[in-house]
Amino acid sequence: MNETLKQYNEQVNQQLETSLPSPQGPAERLFSAMRYSVFNGGKRIRPLLCFAAAEAIDKTTQATSVVAASIEMIHAYSLIHDDLPAMDNDNLRRGAPTCHIQYDEATAILAGDALQALAFETLARIDGVSADNTVELLRLLSTLGGCSGMATGQAIDLAGTGNALSLEELKFMHAHKTGALIEASVLMGAVATGQADRKQLAALSDFAQSIGLAFQIQDDILDVESSTLQLGKRQGSDLANRKPTYTSLLGIVEAKQQAADLYSQSIESLDIFSEKAATLRFLGNFIVNRDY
Amino acid sequence: MNETLKQYNEQVNQQLETSLPSPQGPAERLFSAMRYSVFNGGKRIRPLLCFAAAEAIDKTTQATSVVAASIEMIHAYSLIHDDLPAMDNDNLRRGAPTCHIQYDEATAILAGDALQALAFETLARIDGVSADNTVELLRLLSTLGGCSGMATGQAIDLAGTGNALSLEELKFMHAHKTGALIEASVLMGAVATGQADRKQLAALSDFAQSIGLAFQIQDDILDVESSTLQLGKRQGSDLANRKPTYTSLLGIVEAKQQAADLYSQSIESLDIFSEKAATLRFLGNFIVNRDY
Repeated sequence: MNETLKQYNEQVNQQLETSLPSPQGPAERLFSAMRYSVFNGGKRIRPLLCFAAAEAIDKTTQATSVVAASIEMIHAYSLIHDDLPAMDNDNLRRGAPTCHIQYDEATAILAGDALQALAFETLARIDGVSADNTVELLRLLSTLGGCSGMATGQAIDLAGTGNALSLEELKFMHAHKTGALIEASVLMGAVATGQADRKQLAALSDFAQSIGLAFQIQDDILDVESSTLQLGKRQGSDLANRKPTYTSLLGIVEAKQQAADLYSQSIESLDIFSEKAATLRFLGNFIVNRDY
Repeated sequence: MNETLKQYNEQVNQQLETSLPSPQGPAERLFSAMRYSVFNGGKRIRPLLCFAAAEAIDKTTQATSVVAASIEMIHAYSLIHDDLPAMDNDNLRRGAPTCHIQYDEATAILAGDALQALAFETLARIDGVSADNTVELLRLLSTLGGCSGMATGQAIDLAGTGNALSLEELKFMHAHKTGALIEASVLMGAVATGQADRKQLAALSDFAQSIGLAFQIQDDILDVESSTLQLGKRQGSDLANRKPTYTSLLGIVEAKQQAADLYSQSIESLDIFSEKAATLRFLGNFIVNRDY
């Protein structure tokens, strides 16, 4: 299993290498900052979910790599902008200086902007997918990465910092901020195969919604329990930023229980796929049990 | 003629009104900031070019409004981010506080990000255009609004501030920063009709490249000659920001001559369209003769 994931990881990295502009010419600094942020040792969870969903429906192809790369670009842009001084003001990510520290703030803003555009450009140039499905891929990424997804989640997060949120509000925020792009990952992996039916897409949506929330709860648990070294960012930074978290609202024991329950739900959603969803199940397990 | 343009202006505003999320719910501040920046009295030059190009090829339709709205969203996002403290640090645009002054910096960054996503979402949901042409529209906007266009132009602008640029470098910068989105406007207006052939698209490209450069030269002339009241932003701000301009490189007399030459070239590019390009010609004339 790990061999398969390692291979997918290499495939998406190769695609990112191809799709990102070479760091040269008059915009060298911008292109270099884009690469710096994309190749910073991320876990590539979203791309892996994308490959695993393609497997569950049919099989992975070159188009899966292209879709996975486009999702990772959106993820990378969101991290660059979230780290900015006006947002979370983080200097460290995965043990390295954040983009605006390594380059400068203007370049970081622009690198995020350009990565977002490149994600859509990469999809719009995909080969081996029908035009109808290409439009559907673009619709999913722009919707779930934008006003009906990630951007709205980030807006609620901004509004919530320093304020008390109810558990329902916290869930709503994370379903948008993190969950939406995780949902996009599995749905887009499936759509790119050209073989997914409605029932399968609904099951993948259910899986993504459960595992997306579990992912965030585990993030909050790690923020409390892990060291700065393991996390590659300041331990307890959510607490320091007075961000509402699952652990602060539920306590750590109940937070762990909810993550376990969500994991079970996510696995149940995959029943219709039998053995073809083995990689998705493995990733679900990894998401709730990871220690970094 | 002005009646036609007024009608197009209303059509794109109506489409923007429909496409932008209502300022309510937990992300109310974000959605409100997006609307604030889109409805700030802009001239809607790019949407108008889009309608005029559709006219030149065939006729305008509901799809033209959707395409025009998506382009204006990209333009609005670029202005929000360009105005940020880390970029041009402008407090005033079109006589009103810029987005980060009216709201706050984090909201302004996010409003730009969300407008970019919404531009692609709006295109991905267009009706009355074939899937192939929809993909082409998305390809044009993501390419010319991103690494092969606007984002690269902005990167060169950042790198150039305070440095001496040659005339060639300045032209290259503006061809990307402003020209690319103007080119996208006419090409996308044409593609959305479903009737454009290669020769027509090439002619529209030529027109856009000449008029795009003329647009920027006129901007530089106005920055020197107009009052702050007319411009709605600080007069002489380019000079104050030590930005290289056509007027500083060429002098004002030669800058005006080059704008006039580019206007003539742009009009020649439209010869193949006969009377159908009347609105495009009118807009070309407006671009080089406007006083605001």
